[in-house]
Amino acid sequence: MMESMRDKAVAEAAKVLEQARSVLLFPHVTMDGDALGSAAALCAALRKLGKTAHVVIEDEIPETIAFLDRGYCTGDLGIVESPDVCVCVDCGEAHRFPRRKALFESGATRVCVDHHESTKPFVEHNCIDAKASATAEIAYDLILALGVEMDREIGEAIYAGILTDTGRFQYSNTSKTTHLIAAALYDCGIDAAGIAIRLYQNVSREKLLLGSRIMGSMEIFAEGRAAMACMTRDMLKDTGARPEEADGVVEELRNIRGVEVACLLKERDPGLVKVSLRSKRYVDVLPLSERHGGGGHARAAGYSLRMPLDEAKETLRQDMGALF
Amino acid sequence: MMESMRDKAVAEAAKVLEQARSVLLFPHVTMDGDALGSAAALCAALRKLGKTAHVVIEDEIPETIAFLDRGYCTGDLGIVESPDVCVCVDCGEAHRFPRRKALFESGATRVCVDHHESTKPFVEHNCIDAKASATAEIAYDLILALGVEMDREIGEAIYAGILTDTGRFQYSNTSKTTHLIAAALYDCGIDAAGIAIRLYQNVSREKLLLGSRIMGSMEIFAEGRAAMACMTRDMLKDTGARPEEADGVVEELRNIRGVEVACLLKERDPGLVKVSLRSKRYVDVLPLSERHGGGGHARAAGYSLRMPLDEAKETLRQDMGALF
Repeated sequence: MMESMRDKAVAEAAKVLEQARSVLLFPHVTMDGDALGSAAALCAALRKLGKTAHVVIEDEIPETIAFLDRGYCTGDLGIVESPDVCVCVDCGEAHRFPRRKALFESGATRVCVDHHESTKPFVEHNCIDAKASATAEIAYDLILALGVEMDREIGEAIYAGILTDTGRFQYSNTSKTTHLIAAALYDCGIDAAGIAIRLYQNVSREKLLLGSRIMGSMEIFAEGRAAMACMTRDMLKDTGARPEEADGVVEELRNIRGVEVACLLKERDPGLVKVSLRSKRYVDVLPLSERHGGGGHARAAGYSLRMPLDEAKETLRQDMGALF
Repeated sequence: MMESMRDKAVAEAAKVLEQARSVLLFPHVTMDGDALGSAAALCAALRKLGKTAHVVIEDEIPETIAFLDRGYCTGDLGIVESPDVCVCVDCGEAHRFPRRKALFESGATRVCVDHHESTKPFVEHNCIDAKASATAEIAYDLILALGVEMDREIGEAIYAGILTDTGRFQYSNTSKTTHLIAAALYDCGIDAAGIAIRLYQNVSREKLLLGSRIMGSMEIFAEGRAAMACMTRDMLKDTGARPEEADGVVEELRNIRGVEVACLLKERDPGLVKVSLRSKRYVDVLPLSERHGGGGHARAAGYSLRMPLDEAKETLRQDMGALF
């Protein structure tokens, strides 16, 4: 989306939100810092305008990002009857909020705020910009367009979204705009270092143990360009870690010198494996993900495989080998 | 140092450099991205002005930052006789470039460009600003003051310095200015993501193995607020890793939930242990480091202990315990 098109879409969505009395925000399931941060920032801004606004969720908030919920989130699907506007945040497909789909569709008007390459306009008002490093960048524009003054709370939610989705400003999605927004957020008094500490310096011992167990299963193939590792249900039991504590391991695999594509297979049930893919410089992993009904970006994508872990490993060895 | 004092010091140093024909730059030993990045950026800028300029070094450049040396570095202490200006970069004490001390002092004029809290003005012209996130921020100002147009090569060296010393914009030294400089660097066409990949996604398998061995020696004490681990010479032999590949492990220790101060002890010789200290939020580790003849910052400091490893461990248990 070109800059002016994004501006136009944002202005249009702002108009829709201004006219609403009640707004519900829908981050995707398995929330990350960008989904929850963007939804929290928008919720705070809408409340500052006197609207009834809630972030409606259907799964638990991961511990490291729980600080972003400052009274915005609710699991009560009946909290507002006949909402004026429903906004899906950091996702653009109803299957990313399956149990909230009916509620989302009950909105008199619907808005999508997202930055995923794979998202196509699917509701009345779509602010989709795959060039944005994070949905939080678009949420930031939207809040400015609403005429709401940024404050520390909104600023920190936006900052958390950007920090998470850029991997601390290091991924190729980071732009001059990303840094200019970050600089502007300092003016609202955000505790940027404090947010980084909460997100990145808050690792449980269980997570460290799980990470080292997963690393023990590492295999490298495709002439050193592919790395794969698994998280089994036994590893979770042995270490006492929670499944989401495997987050970050796939990036560590990708960080190995010479490795271009990394994959982490997470055994959820005996016959259900979650696949996380990351690439470093040139391989686009999105088509592989989409072929299996998943989504994501060129450098980070994911999907599920309904098969036992061993079969999933063999499938990935072949699929990843074919990427080169 | 106040902004205007820094500006004044930078303007004065720029004048000195403008008048020089030959300039030698001295990054500290055990170069990091900020020391080498700042020196490389200044060297490139001075060469654009037609000066004879070299970065004089006395130890090997660590592999992950070697890409920053685009023909600037030399180990030849006789490369320029009677240099007009000698600039120490990212350090402010001659013992941080021991074998180059005489050469540094042979400069007709000497300049210090540094951001370390512990650095006191010690030469004719001192651009020292402990508020700068990285020496590269001051180098950036100095290059602008010299009237040199930023190009991609200079921009990438500055960016590498900032990225390294802010831990990817996450430490509390990061400021609005840091992000504004980063944004401006995008205008010179820097490949920011490429630099992050070289610095952070370029981990050898040996380093991963060493990291997991070091983690195995971890102990947590002081009611969970202190974490300590050791790198022995045996671990290096067993894994085939180089000593500098332990970089980053002390940050991983600090990242454990509840841990405020982390320490990594690196056995260099049977009777020589290098101590790296990191803190998270509130403990100032610099006084402890200075008491042992070391230096650094409030959140990151280091020194050497001339004693066997076991004795060093016991010393640190006591010293770290006393920090709370």
